[in-house]
Amino acid sequence: MKLAHLFTRTLRDAPSDAEMVNHQLAVRAGLVRLVAAGSYALMPLGRRVIQKIEGILRDEINRIDGQEIRMPVVQPAEIFQASGRWDSFGPVLQKIKNGSGREFALGPTHEDVVAFLAEREIDSYKQLPQHVYQIQTKYRNEARPRGGLIRLREFTMKDSYSLHTDYADLDRFYERMVGAYRRICERVQIDVFPVEADTGVMGGRDSHEFVMLHDQGEALVVVCDQCGYAANTEAAAFRLDKPEAVEWEAVQKVATPDCTSIQEVADFIGVPTNQTLKAVFFVNEKAGQVGEFVFVVIRGDLDVNEVKLINALGGGEVRPATDEEIRATGAVPGYASPMGLSQDVKVIADVSVRYGANFVAGANDAGYHFTGVNVPRDFDPAVVVDLAEPYEGAGCARCDGGHLHLKRAIEIGHCFKLGTRYSDVMDVTYQDEKGESHPVVMGSYGIGLERLMGLIIEAHHDDYGIIWPRCVAPFDVHIVVLGKEPEYVERAAQLHDELIAAGFDVLLDDRADCTAGVKFADADLIGVPVRLTVSKKALEAGCVEGKRRASSERVMVPLEQVVEWVGEE
Amino acid sequence: MKLAHLFTRTLRDAPSDAEMVNHQLAVRAGLVRLVAAGSYALMPLGRRVIQKIEGILRDEINRIDGQEIRMPVVQPAEIFQASGRWDSFGPVLQKIKNGSGREFALGPTHEDVVAFLAEREIDSYKQLPQHVYQIQTKYRNEARPRGGLIRLREFTMKDSYSLHTDYADLDRFYERMVGAYRRICERVQIDVFPVEADTGVMGGRDSHEFVMLHDQGEALVVVCDQCGYAANTEAAAFRLDKPEAVEWEAVQKVATPDCTSIQEVADFIGVPTNQTLKAVFFVNEKAGQVGEFVFVVIRGDLDVNEVKLINALGGGEVRPATDEEIRATGAVPGYASPMGLSQDVKVIADVSVRYGANFVAGANDAGYHFTGVNVPRDFDPAVVVDLAEPYEGAGCARCDGGHLHLKRAIEIGHCFKLGTRYSDVMDVTYQDEKGESHPVVMGSYGIGLERLMGLIIEAHHDDYGIIWPRCVAPFDVHIVVLGKEPEYVERAAQLHDELIAAGFDVLLDDRADCTAGVKFADADLIGVPVRLTVSKKALEAGCVEGKRRASSERVMVPLEQVVEWVGEE
Repeated sequence: MKLAHLFTRTLRDAPSDAEMVNHQLAVRAGLVRLVAAGSYALMPLGRRVIQKIEGILRDEINRIDGQEIRMPVVQPAEIFQASGRWDSFGPVLQKIKNGSGREFALGPTHEDVVAFLAEREIDSYKQLPQHVYQIQTKYRNEARPRGGLIRLREFTMKDSYSLHTDYADLDRFYERMVGAYRRICERVQIDVFPVEADTGVMGGRDSHEFVMLHDQGEALVVVCDQCGYAANTEAAAFRLDKPEAVEWEAVQKVATPDCTSIQEVADFIGVPTNQTLKAVFFVNEKAGQVGEFVFVVIRGDLDVNEVKLINALGGGEVRPATDEEIRATGAVPGYASPMGLSQDVKVIADVSVRYGANFVAGANDAGYHFTGVNVPRDFDPAVVVDLAEPYEGAGCARCDGGHLHLKRAIEIGHCFKLGTRYSDVMDVTYQDEKGESHPVVMGSYGIGLERLMGLIIEAHHDDYGIIWPRCVAPFDVHIVVLGKEPEYVERAAQLHDELIAAGFDVLLDDRADCTAGVKFADADLIGVPVRLTVSKKALEAGCVEGKRRASSERVMVPLEQVVEWVGEE
Repeated sequence: MKLAHLFTRTLRDAPSDAEMVNHQLAVRAGLVRLVAAGSYALMPLGRRVIQKIEGILRDEINRIDGQEIRMPVVQPAEIFQASGRWDSFGPVLQKIKNGSGREFALGPTHEDVVAFLAEREIDSYKQLPQHVYQIQTKYRNEARPRGGLIRLREFTMKDSYSLHTDYADLDRFYERMVGAYRRICERVQIDVFPVEADTGVMGGRDSHEFVMLHDQGEALVVVCDQCGYAANTEAAAFRLDKPEAVEWEAVQKVATPDCTSIQEVADFIGVPTNQTLKAVFFVNEKAGQVGEFVFVVIRGDLDVNEVKLINALGGGEVRPATDEEIRATGAVPGYASPMGLSQDVKVIADVSVRYGANFVAGANDAGYHFTGVNVPRDFDPAVVVDLAEPYEGAGCARCDGGHLHLKRAIEIGHCFKLGTRYSDVMDVTYQDEKGESHPVVMGSYGIGLERLMGLIIEAHHDDYGIIWPRCVAPFDVHIVVLGKEPEYVERAAQLHDELIAAGFDVLLDDRADCTAGVKFADADLIGVPVRLTVSKKALEAGCVEGKRRASSERVMVPLEQVVEWVGEE
């Protein structure tokens, strides 16, 4: 392939809004071109990389008995309604109405369709387990596409679905899938690790994200410095120290003039912030329902993780309540008290309210707080769950003495133990050996291909461009011809053909109107693993100059040894 | 792969609405499952066939310098608006609005996006020609999906686009693409031939469909029995015999009581129907415009081809006018006359009005006709074009003495010489050697993969099921085990592994609870080219029984020769 004939070109400048390296380099090298916000055309170089990634994915997924299928992108509303996700998916689900008024949605993922098919195809334990997968276009109407290839609206996903007779079989398969994901990431040379994650709109009982640490990542994960426990902050548990056994004081109302923050109240009264309680107000909005007011109580040194709160509330979205909404419940903003609340208000407390004594809490009277507040003596919340955002240095809940550290990361893949979340509502059952009917136990496992390409670039680049790992490089060899004498151009074309005959993918830059500098800069930018330079000097010595993209060394390679040298790792 | 573990099953009965063989067999064999009208999930067997077809397409398209790319399924309205197809595409274009009110459409084809990309990437003659392609999901909101896999709403398309400096280069490339399409159809063993076709909503100046003859085809094509001229009836020209030189009579108004058809009028007056003129009324509806009334005059022995009429009217759709609409123009339904028409009515005549003399035409008076009507003496239509539907036995317009025969056919692929239809409106230009700017000349070329799979089934089946050509078969070998003795099952598993090691795709039917009859019936239905039966009798002779799906012969194959025997064509 001649570089001059690629349906794309390299660019000197990155898009002005490109903050991440993958975004800058993917556009500059001509891998992709933006067509709409969050939606790229894969140009020939990008498509070649994605095809190599597809090959690696198929290879590893077929190894664990994956059967490739292809489900429609446009899914009928009825299937989402049957699973309950027509409403619960939220605005990310792009809905469509056709001319006759029938509704559809663009598939953001395919659990619902797999359950629809399984209900029709599976009836016996003899057909289980099943592992089906597809490599297919997905569409999610993300509010804020970002990071170049990291969060797209339209993207390609390798999505696997497994069907089992029971949880034990799901657990065994889940480990095989985790192994496959590890091998995939090893092969494309990115460092990832699994973290416990929230199940979110997928439902089910257990899930893991594969993440790569990255300063610009949107995900926040915790990693224990002792036992290796790792979790997304949305799912992470941490240890709260047991309260010292102190004598419970009586409740006293004290004036706290001009104290508008937890820190000021604590300082004024002379207690640490973890001896205060704060009230935080939210409105929980679910599709088709009136928003519900929620009064959250949490220890003053901690913050509420909204995803944990949403899960505790059974879905929907949450937003901070307005002062007006707070006052409408009879509470005083800034001084709200969990004590003496109206029975009509939904109260939900973080477990931290049980870790401490003689708390300082609002008195529901502007300028006043209570001291000596104790749970459950002075208030006894009906719902006490983990709602707290983990913090740097928090104690690990899984080991003794370890501490959690916060790290920014990017999610690469996600595995879900869906259990019977879909089977129950969509009637996916099988008969066991005795003819008894049971719900099928499901898992789902996704990995985004364009994002994977982006992360490979994030992990493999320098100031000049991309440094592709060989297994995903768009070409194996990049030949640069210096000078436009027909002799060199011809020799280069011959070399191009020899290497192709030897099974390599070869890009040939024989542009007559470019300087050596421009050609070398393009080669560095595109990042093909091996560069061969055909020049007068080298040819006179019976050689070409070889350089590997990952190294700065240039070597003279005798013409008759080129194929061999290119093949060396 | 064990047949019992396929994520699908064979069915005894075809869907009740399945009229075509591909529909019946694709569903019964478990290749596909319906998810919504016109939209199937490809199950493992179907996906395997499509993957093999993809391989053949890539191979042939790469041979003619195709660069694979991938454009988005969801395309922004702005790109269609720039090309003018946002309105002209009609209801087949599925439009979408997102939460922020932005409009998109699901890509029915990608000429518009290619032009959008080319405008940005191409600026010099040195970059031309280009041939880019993708194998990608398309969506067309077809009013009536039909024929199983023949006309779908969601389907996979191999769509190529070529860019050229001029028409001569386009013409040369077009022939290469026609050659590639011929080779593809040869490889998958279906008989096709190119026919001249209408360009329709694509625009441009020339197009060919590749069609396969089929009694249930929706397309009607004409083929000359002498020169081989072939065309879709929507594009086909035919020869009208030159009128004999007769003396023009005077116009006379004659009573034609109780004559309600052309045949009755002709018989009553005593002339052949080709000496009559008939008036046909349509309303031409274009998006966003008030329907326009159209008065069509054509010789009485011919009919109007609506696609030819739409093209003559510059697009939109046509429907027959109502009697009320006809009367509103002052015409009398059944007796309308092309003579003395109001200037406000749009009149368009078929060329046949020039082939004949002394016509009988309506007198615009109920119960009366004129005789002796002559063109242009008595009426002189402003627009005279070919509007006529070709008929069986019509004279060929390309040769002397040949006759056209009507045949039903199914379209497999379509090639369009788009010319500068898109470049002109989307500003896709290149600079020549002198620095002068010219519009890029385009071509586009599509082939539907599911339809191709369906047509292979239409061409290769018998009463028992599919007979796959080897190159697209979902598996190469289908092993049937008779009896459930562990010894046979083990030997079959060993054979399965040996054949896989030799590079074959193998399906193993070792179901313990099925009769030999059920297993053989499933093997015939699925249609894998080679069947090997492992049985007591055969094993005792050191053999397995081999049978090729396309033949009725059964042969005993010594175990040590199985790999070789399977490999023979």
